[in-house]
Amino acid sequence: MSEKKPVHQTRYRVIYGDVDQMGVVYYGNYLRLFEWGRTEMIRDRGLAYKEIEDRDVALPVTEAYCHYHKSAMYDDLLVIETSLGFLKRASLRFDYRIFRDETESEPLVEGYTVHACVNADGRIVRVPGFVKDRLTNLV
Amino acid sequence: MSEKKPVHQTRYRVIYGDVDQMGVVYYGNYLRLFEWGRTEMIRDRGLAYKEIEDRDVALPVTEAYCHYHKSAMYDDLLVIETSLGFLKRASLRFDYRIFRDETESEPLVEGYTVHACVNADGRIVRVPGFVKDRLTNLV
Amino acid sequence: MSEKKPVHQTRYRVIYGDVDQMGVVYYGNYLRLFEWGRTEMIRDRGLAYKEIEDRDVALPVTEAYCHYHKSAMYDDLLVIETSLGFLKRASLRFDYRIFRDETESEPLVEGYTVHACVNADGRIVRVPGFVKDRLTNLV
Amino acid sequence: MSEKKPVHQTRYRVIYGDVDQMGVVYYGNYLRLFEWGRTEMIRDRGLAYKEIEDRDVALPVTEAYCHYHKSAMYDDLLVIETSLGFLKRASLRFDYRIFRDETESEPLVEGYTVHACVNADGRIVRVPGFVKDRLTNLV
Repeated sequence: MSEKKPVHQTRYRVIYGDVDQMGVVYYGNYLRLFEWGRTEMIRDRGLAYKEIEDRDVALPVTEAYCHYHKSAMYDDLLVIETSLGFLKRASLRFDYRIFRDETESEPLVEGYTVHACVNADGRIVRVPGFVKDRLTNLV
Repeated sequence: MSEKKPVHQTRYRVIYGDVDQMGVVYYGNYLRLFEWGRTEMIRDRGLAYKEIEDRDVALPVTEAYCHYHKSAMYDDLLVIETSLGFLKRASLRFDYRIFRDETESEPLVEGYTVHACVNADGRIVRVPGFVKDRLTNLV
Repeated sequence: MSEKKPVHQTRYRVIYGDVDQMGVVYYGNYLRLFEWGRTEMIRDRGLAYKEIEDRDVALPVTEAYCHYHKSAMYDDLLVIETSLGFLKRASLRFDYRIFRDETESEPLVEGYTVHACVNADGRIVRVPGFVKDRLTNLV
Repeated sequence: MSEKKPVHQTRYRVIYGDVDQMGVVYYGNYLRLFEWGRTEMIRDRGLAYKEIEDRDVALPVTEAYCHYHKSAMYDDLLVIETSLGFLKRASLRFDYRIFRDETESEPLVEGYTVHACVNADGRIVRVPGFVKDRLTNLV
């Protein structure tokens, strides 16, 4: 029985279009990387986010937070590590750690996104079973 | 009676999020500036692009071209100059010149976008009269 | 003597390039709007951020937070309201409220960015007097 | 002896941050994909673009062109196919074709970027041998 939260890792190579004139990734672009992380984590659990939407459920972001420790540079190969922070009745949180491929112990950026669960009319609803099962299934 | 094409000008201040590590605007971001230019030009003619869509017409871009002469830098106040290149039966072209506020004679970037006219089903249709009238009205 | 913090307002028109397929501004793009807000606020105090850099001081973002209440839509004219959250020895915070031009009482997004003050070598230094004076000058 | 130009392929998954409210990739974002294509093509030849810059040579884009045939959608797995269009004394061109992973015969977007070769002072110079050799080496 593991105590560790299952995490998902996806890789991303920084391009010129991501960095600013300090030669580091623009602070707003990490939220794009967070999206990659959670999308690939969900897919890895056997569920594309697109399928969630096809079933008239959406998970809009209600809060986002980034803590920038160090700078990611042009051409860095980054690892985006995503885990499920919490899953409540009608909301959930994803946690992220971004680090260089070689130095996992030194995260460059850490953060989270909180998501509401809404139906096609935009009303808050319970997180449906098919989403909950996939995300909390530890195997 | 003027021979000159009527042009529209809109201003844009370059932010950190636009520039790359050379300290110049990332080449792909000029297409965002072109969108600002044509949207404000259309609005200036008394027609929001949103209203065109509300009437089930869309003008998706089919071609885009940029010629990069000089670099726009961080904090530059740019002028985006937009004019109508052509308006045919089912397509139209906008032409753009981007320069620094002080040096109109030296364009930094020139380019164009070609747009098809499509209906709500995505089928090519004639440019409707209410669009044509606004865009070709020289007064 | 006013108790209210002085705030700065700048306007921004949402383009296609800002919105996602829900028709609302992509959550990461608000950090670009925050940059506009603070840059124009600083400029309004008589100091371009560029000049700060020219004096070998930089204010990199160390934390960013967004709370998304409602969605900004395509073609919305947004107001970005920026105020100084705190100014400590070697760091400062800007607070932001974004709302539609017509409905100031209902912020769409609220958030903040925390900045460290560093010198040309990237070392943490005191916020210099010329920055402090401008930002805390209430007149 | 092959008549076909050697091409390089790299894959990219479309995220929410790439699409606009039509649910298709925003037209300006393809220039980011072109950057991915050429960067990975060069790397595949054993040369990171960063190394070129480390040797005081840069290849700024002087022209970019996109022809949009069909739309790439959210969550599409795209293939970016890059080939060398030409390599002259002081400039070169990359050609791109972007298609869905399953339908190579139907490109969604085709385009090119022309690059000047400049030294650290921004002056036009000959394309150095170490760049030329890598890019034109067909093996």
